[in-house]
Amino acid sequence: MLTEQQVRQFHDEGYLFLPETFNDDEVAVLKSEAEAIYRQQRPEVWREKSGAPRTAFAAHLYNEAHGLLARHPRMIRPVEQLFGEPVYMHQYKINAKAAFTGDVWQWHQDYGTWARDDGMPEPRAMNIAIFLDEVMPINGPLMLVPRSHTLGVLAAEHDTATTSYPLWTLDEATVTKLVEAGGIVAPTGKAGGLLMFHGNLVHGSAGNITPYPRKIVYLTLNAVSNYIRKPTRPEWIAHTDFAPIVPTDEGALTRYAQRFRQAAE
Amino acid sequence: MLTEQQVRQFHDEGYLFLPETFNDDEVAVLKSEAEAIYRQQRPEVWREKSGAPRTAFAAHLYNEAHGLLARHPRMIRPVEQLFGEPVYMHQYKINAKAAFTGDVWQWHQDYGTWARDDGMPEPRAMNIAIFLDEVMPINGPLMLVPRSHTLGVLAAEHDTATTSYPLWTLDEATVTKLVEAGGIVAPTGKAGGLLMFHGNLVHGSAGNITPYPRKIVYLTLNAVSNYIRKPTRPEWIAHTDFAPIVPTDEGALTRYAQRFRQAAE
Repeated sequence: MLTEQQVRQFHDEGYLFLPETFNDDEVAVLKSEAEAIYRQQRPEVWREKSGAPRTAFAAHLYNEAHGLLARHPRMIRPVEQLFGEPVYMHQYKINAKAAFTGDVWQWHQDYGTWARDDGMPEPRAMNIAIFLDEVMPINGPLMLVPRSHTLGVLAAEHDTATTSYPLWTLDEATVTKLVEAGGIVAPTGKAGGLLMFHGNLVHGSAGNITPYPRKIVYLTLNAVSNYIRKPTRPEWIAHTDFAPIVPTDEGALTRYAQRFRQAAE
Repeated sequence: MLTEQQVRQFHDEGYLFLPETFNDDEVAVLKSEAEAIYRQQRPEVWREKSGAPRTAFAAHLYNEAHGLLARHPRMIRPVEQLFGEPVYMHQYKINAKAAFTGDVWQWHQDYGTWARDDGMPEPRAMNIAIFLDEVMPINGPLMLVPRSHTLGVLAAEHDTATTSYPLWTLDEATVTKLVEAGGIVAPTGKAGGLLMFHGNLVHGSAGNITPYPRKIVYLTLNAVSNYIRKPTRPEWIAHTDFAPIVPTDEGALTRYAQRFRQAAE
């Protein structure tokens, strides 16, 4: 459970960072499986202009370890607590931000896309990033603009050129104003950290030219009553299975990870 | 004068960071003049693909404040001390790393270019970065690979595509090996800091998508006896005036900056 102070911080600042939420064993199996997924040729795996993997969508539906993470109580319970109701998986992806070639994500809000492309009624969906590699200041951390979630959906332009993924991005004047008010935070830390933030929080990330990859699981939990009304994107990008997630028991992923480690030894 | 420990650190690690070397008045005039220079249309001012200013070469020759910085004893004396002889200005530029659009500089060594393009006999020239804006982890700081200066000139490829400036860049396998040995440092701090590093130290910088510009003066002081033998680049990129720099008195830039401030008030 989140403390009162954490709940208040989420509502005030628009984000909450929970370092070391998953242990080394759990991270090891999730990371190893992510790399195996990236080697697959399938429509859910998108690549950078360079050919390096960028994103693997819906990995929780075709990979057991990621399936266990997607129902993990350490993640599901706090979000249920904040929304006051059960949640379902709106989107699940593993973002690579590859070493040397990891591409930029321009400043944007996610709820803009969910509203326009998926018909999501309200911004009652939570973005969650789970670090599979150490996130450092120099390998393209997510940058958030605190308090920018309080202003609703901001005007945005559809950018299909800058990056490999079409995005509704904000203009420089808007971002400058928001940053003057709220600054920028870039939570960093070892693999296993969990960052959650509001669907209207403005965020982006710079490119990565270091030899350190920065893989994260980046998923969205939507309040069940806020299910999407007008899906236009493929099922594996914006899911239409609105059944409430039933969390696993606390130790399910841990046990799976330990079996994985023992098998490798 | 540098302490014995600073001299040792330079030789061991390949760099030395001297925070807050120039005061607020001095920074203010250098920065204001840099912005005025960027507004000029002249061959020495290069731009990003977006049109934003990227680099202004040879500004010390056509701007009085930058002319005073180029002869400043706080910068010249330590470099003379390390080389044991007088120095001259090999290159002087103001790099913009503009807000939102600041471009990447791939991993490279500078001495490779000086040797190949300018006929510089030895890596006895010092790179110096003087911060005109606050350098933060998130606005594209210079990243250095400590100890990489001890390996001489590494094999490199001429990259004319990635960035707006042709560079001899290192491949990923080489950079990975160097970083495994030495790590990466990215000195940050308020405007006025001075970073000096060896001509063979491997360095690069990521793009800047924040609203915070990261202007630095980036100059090269060459030992006079190491003057370039085969210039092939324009005089304003690789100077051929090999006369030893005669430092100004300690207060010359300070007095200029104070007059500038008083005139503006």
